[in-house]
Amino acid sequence: MKELNQITVIGLGLLGGSIGLTIRRCFQNTKVIGHTHRATTRKKARKAEIVDEVCDRLKESVSNSELVILATPICTFENIFSKIADALPNGCIVTDVGSTKVLPHKWAEKTLLGNTQYIGSHPIAGSEQRGLEFARDDLFEKAICILTTKPNTERNDLHKLKNFWMKLGCLVKTMTPEKHDKVFADISHIPHITAASLINANDSKTLKFAGKGFIDTSRIASGPPNIWSDIIITNAQNNVKGIDKIIKELKNIKNAIKNNDKKQIEKLLKNARRKRAALINYKMKQRELLP
Amino acid sequence: MKELNQITVIGLGLLGGSIGLTIRRCFQNTKVIGHTHRATTRKKARKAEIVDEVCDRLKESVSNSELVILATPICTFENIFSKIADALPNGCIVTDVGSTKVLPHKWAEKTLLGNTQYIGSHPIAGSEQRGLEFARDDLFEKAICILTTKPNTERNDLHKLKNFWMKLGCLVKTMTPEKHDKVFADISHIPHITAASLINANDSKTLKFAGKGFIDTSRIASGPPNIWSDIIITNAQNNVKGIDKIIKELKNIKNAIKNNDKKQIEKLLKNARRKRAALINYKMKQRELLP
Repeated sequence: MKELNQITVIGLGLLGGSIGLTIRRCFQNTKVIGHTHRATTRKKARKAEIVDEVCDRLKESVSNSELVILATPICTFENIFSKIADALPNGCIVTDVGSTKVLPHKWAEKTLLGNTQYIGSHPIAGSEQRGLEFARDDLFEKAICILTTKPNTERNDLHKLKNFWMKLGCLVKTMTPEKHDKVFADISHIPHITAASLINANDSKTLKFAGKGFIDTSRIASGPPNIWSDIIITNAQNNVKGIDKIIKELKNIKNAIKNNDKKQIEKLLKNARRKRAALINYKMKQRELLP
Repeated sequence: MKELNQITVIGLGLLGGSIGLTIRRCFQNTKVIGHTHRATTRKKARKAEIVDEVCDRLKESVSNSELVILATPICTFENIFSKIADALPNGCIVTDVGSTKVLPHKWAEKTLLGNTQYIGSHPIAGSEQRGLEFARDDLFEKAICILTTKPNTERNDLHKLKNFWMKLGCLVKTMTPEKHDKVFADISHIPHITAASLINANDSKTLKFAGKGFIDTSRIASGPPNIWSDIIITNAQNNVKGIDKIIKELKNIKNAIKNNDKKQIEKLLKNARRKRAALINYKMKQRELLP
């Protein structure tokens, strides 16, 4: 398959920066343009040679690209779509790296023109770190990347985008935006909300006694609050349902404690232990986790 | 300070086994006796030379020891205390390594005789692994160990026990059993309950999409269910209160989502991030975490 001539990355934080670096490493004949709204970050990106060229103007940055990737907080997408819509060349594929997908698809449908194709991307990579300083050219190695499509998505464009992420090192899966948002509420957004709640429920004096268990359990709560508030609010319905599910499970254990029912507590803990063992086993087989 | 002549460890799992191995490494002139109720484990302990001598009979195992350490599930303590009470030599210190302390103190007071001294110990060490096979002679290196005392605790005995744990590599702190159980509900038992709830709220199909974040957040739920059901039920009141606090925090975020209040979500996440950053900073300064 022919390499893309030019790719634009909008937003140069941990993810956008890592995409820039990885394109530079993996693509021989592709020019990668970067844009970000902060002049100081553009300066840093130029100095660190994160992309081939940093462009000061948003519209200009996309006007010759075959692929445009938004790596900004989700709630900026609609505005960016509307600003770039008439500057995008015919046949351009627009994607993003946001953690929710239903609303981005809606915004794209409403705002982008018919001569371009939006497909959602969600590479499961990154960490609780943020910013260009942490960008790495191996961040996507063996990361799962979910692409979200609608029934009218062009198969050829999907194929191109799949190839792009695979070349960056990802294992690509596709699903509908609706399924994506439901699944990721349960296994990503709700754990984040729970980790933050665990910390917020305690004062700093109590936290000083925390051991390795607490530190691991709460790690994801150190993620960037502006990115995560966008994720949580753009997946509102699934997150409300997910919080209710967790509260239900917590109440199950609480009732067992109140009833002094040790058998029932042990049963609930055994169930969790067994399911987690199966999960770890599956991840090992998939080679997503090392033994 | 004179080394103890003889120590008995009752229960030879991960913790009991590790205590045996560490005593053998750190104490030149101390004999360590081990007992466990399962004949197969006693056989394994003999083969692996976990202690100097494995004793088949519980009462016999304690009859010449200056220090007796229970490393069995908490709900066995009362029964073991009553079985060993009249076999303990005068001046013997009895302790344990359980994760709750109020009830063990009550049981000791009720069951042990006046010629011995009970002090609670809680070394914050271990992992989600279980069993003699995982015992290590460096498990207590830099681990915090909380000792719990009552107003009538003999200072000299406390001093002896403190020295014992320090020699094993621990950083020793003391507090009342009441304070201990409140703090550890919040920073250990509730996180465990929450991790189990996160897993139990999801079916296995959804779990397959879990990434590193979910896997870390849920790690502690792989701990041994029989040990943890004892911990949870012997700290019932604090855990019920703790679950209510977490539910309150979850509802705070849920309400902000329902009100489409992104500012409020971000504020709650920022608060958690800031508190966790302070915690990590503190742990680094204490050299409990490496940079």
